[in-house]
Amino acid sequence: MDSRPIGMFDSGVGGLTVLKEIMTQCPNESIIYLGDTKRFPYGSKSKETIIELTKRGIEFLISKNVKAVVIACGTATSQALEEVQKCYDIPIIGIINSAVRYIKEKDYKNIGIIATRGTIRSKGWQNKINEIIPKASIFYKACPLLAPMAEEGWTENEIAKLTIKEYLEGLKNVECLILGCTHYPLFKEIIQKELGKDKEIINTGEMLSKRLTQILKNNNIENENVQNRKYDIYLTDMETNFINVASKFLKDDKMIEKIYKCDF
Amino acid sequence: MDSRPIGMFDSGVGGLTVLKEIMTQCPNESIIYLGDTKRFPYGSKSKETIIELTKRGIEFLISKNVKAVVIACGTATSQALEEVQKCYDIPIIGIINSAVRYIKEKDYKNIGIIATRGTIRSKGWQNKINEIIPKASIFYKACPLLAPMAEEGWTENEIAKLTIKEYLEGLKNVECLILGCTHYPLFKEIIQKELGKDKEIINTGEMLSKRLTQILKNNNIENENVQNRKYDIYLTDMETNFINVASKFLKDDKMIEKIYKCDF
Repeated sequence: MDSRPIGMFDSGVGGLTVLKEIMTQCPNESIIYLGDTKRFPYGSKSKETIIELTKRGIEFLISKNVKAVVIACGTATSQALEEVQKCYDIPIIGIINSAVRYIKEKDYKNIGIIATRGTIRSKGWQNKINEIIPKASIFYKACPLLAPMAEEGWTENEIAKLTIKEYLEGLKNVECLILGCTHYPLFKEIIQKELGKDKEIINTGEMLSKRLTQILKNNNIENENVQNRKYDIYLTDMETNFINVASKFLKDDKMIEKIYKCDF
Repeated sequence: MDSRPIGMFDSGVGGLTVLKEIMTQCPNESIIYLGDTKRFPYGSKSKETIIELTKRGIEFLISKNVKAVVIACGTATSQALEEVQKCYDIPIIGIINSAVRYIKEKDYKNIGIIATRGTIRSKGWQNKINEIIPKASIFYKACPLLAPMAEEGWTENEIAKLTIKEYLEGLKNVECLILGCTHYPLFKEIIQKELGKDKEIINTGEMLSKRLTQILKNNNIENENVQNRKYDIYLTDMETNFINVASKFLKDDKMIEKIYKCDF
């Protein structure tokens, strides 16, 4: 039994959808979420900068006594995960790897990915799929409007429906579709309807939570005393829009009492 | 007569809509456009950083022998215009001031502004209107989806129409509407239709071009020999999307032969 919290690192507030998943799937665990909103987005930064920032973020979390770290940012995972796994003793998992491992288990061969332009361009998903499932056919589409649309709270209106229809036009033949941006689970219902029930929508936060559960078990570091559980959110910039988006993504979760400002 | 080019400074490629205006309204003038795409967007940067970058951009343009500078970026205008006007001998004009001066001339009192979240938050437009037209009532709305939508080339489809309808909902009582982001003139027709023919849509690039024409005349530095006229574009990052957007905004103008990479 280990009552220390799980650390989560993200470039912004998008990873809060992943936090919600972990809260559901690992209900006994405390979580400290660190969102680097001051330097958001990471997509346009160099690999060296991303490694540097990810290390500093993880060190901030380690200073808060976390027992494991989850990287919820696709860019940080693809650019920095291997490097940071070498640097620290605690388990560190990333958003891409858990989902690709799951897709391999399911033996899917025609794989769709939707993500931001930065994530698609970084080839983080494409490279990891090619490495783990060499025979896969990959279909990808950058959907730059979906993240700002989620931040507007437009996740169920006619505009969202038409936009998703337009974006998924060329992706009808996939067996599964990776939601390669942490904002996208908010559109899951519309996407499922548009693609058809027989296609599996891969919610990367869900995959990450499953992998985290395994790791906690394998390392024998689960928490069993749920009394002392708590959720803390730290952001490096408290600009109003981030706070608005954060509360939308958390659906005004009563268990999170306060968002703290910090720097690292 | 002065055959030296006009310098244009912007944080990205949005100002190319202003370049098009100046090409139309000042057909004899050569233009050098500098877009700081590497550090785009400026909206999230500090005032000090914006002043520093604007100065360096203007010095780059001066090194290319420009006779006047147009700042096409709203953030750079609101944060740095007054400061840089003190530092250099050539005329420097900004996107906000020309439009507000025009609105004052027309005696409009109910003024609408639509812009990006960063521009609205910076209060650049609001402050300048309060200063020049103290009795004005100002109605503003951040429209974070419009710029990425323009960059997707979705400026006439159903999604654009519905989005604009949604955003303009609370702005029906204005006499004029400032398009406070250089991307927005691409939606001008839809906006005019939605607001009604009796409202004046303020295309800030058009106002800036008019002001530029006056300044060239007053300073007696117009070019009269159109033979040697040319248009050069310099960007600090040549990422594919910027190039795509640039060509969309220029409507594949044949007069621009090449886009150069530079740094400053």
